[in-house]
Amino acid sequence: MRQIILVLVAVVALAAVVAYMTPASGQAGEEVAPIYGIKIPVGYRDWKMIAVDQLLVAGKADQLRAQFGNDIAIKALKEGKVTFPDGSIIAAIHWTRVPSEGNNKVLAGPFPGAQSFVVGSPVNVQFMVKDSKKYAATGGWGFADFKNSKPGNEELHNTCFPCHQPAKDRDYVFTHYAPTP
Amino acid sequence: MRQIILVLVAVVALAAVVAYMTPASGQAGEEVAPIYGIKIPVGYRDWKMIAVDQLLVAGKADQLRAQFGNDIAIKALKEGKVTFPDGSIIAAIHWTRVPSEGNNKVLAGPFPGAQSFVVGSPVNVQFMVKDSKKYAATGGWGFADFKNSKPGNEELHNTCFPCHQPAKDRDYVFTHYAPTP
Repeated sequence: MRQIILVLVAVVALAAVVAYMTPASGQAGEEVAPIYGIKIPVGYRDWKMIAVDQLLVAGKADQLRAQFGNDIAIKALKEGKVTFPDGSIIAAIHWTRVPSEGNNKVLAGPFPGAQSFVVGSPVNVQFMVKDSKKYAATGGWGFADFKNSKPGNEELHNTCFPCHQPAKDRDYVFTHYAPTP
Repeated sequence: MRQIILVLVAVVALAAVVAYMTPASGQAGEEVAPIYGIKIPVGYRDWKMIAVDQLLVAGKADQLRAQFGNDIAIKALKEGKVTFPDGSIIAAIHWTRVPSEGNNKVLAGPFPGAQSFVVGSPVNVQFMVKDSKKYAATGGWGFADFKNSKPGNEELHNTCFPCHQPAKDRDYVFTHYAPTP
């Protein structure tokens, strides 16, 4: 009987250690972005999707984009909370937008003149990390921008918070949660 | 001591019952799509994202889109498998594409002339369900299309497989897994 209890205690203890060591939404990339000290969060590509969008800046950017949230951020969004709780992380992946000749050929039958655009190569990935104490001077958010897993410089990171200021009444987050059909 | 063991056994048993009752990627919508008998899978909006794309058909469609996979489908995609195993489900959400005046105002400072487009309202959601025996006549895939949670008619569903035929060498799936930056 005592052996069974010891085994059960050992299993629970092991589970606790594994849970502690596994970064659910923690940060475990290699390089640290300046100012805010943010690394690329482990597994962010598998987070739940918040929304998608498109950005077009003639001659500068032609992108398809998607935003993702860790579980804390997604919970807040689903509950319609205006202020994200500490621990929230939002990731934004930007890809080049490229025409899909293959899709266009298929679509030409049922939809003459159809234009399909798909993602090309990754441009960059950006993160917003909520920590109301650590990042008190910037609305409670830390910002980070990576290209090819390398963080941008300090000058770039100085532009993040001022640019997000207009979304102050939405806790500095521009993206709305995309509705479910 | 015996009480502690009984409590632990009860907790483990309860967890097993809960796990059994929770549909991870099962189907539990209300209405059934014709031909293939597919319901809207529970929780598909929270599945991992495969990719995003854009469709433009002058006067007919102006959409931003995202595809999602259940765990079986995502595993196959990450492993680069050509053939999806039975149990794979792929969901495709289509939204209207609308300009974001708010984003454009903000972007006008750093990026004059920038055009931001975001998702508007949901148009429809489509599913591909892999069951190589049940759907042997259609490449192993069942297809479903829903608008406002209502399935399209039989005529619409008869168009699914012929349209996916050109992607036969990719197991009838057009979407490629979007690369991680």
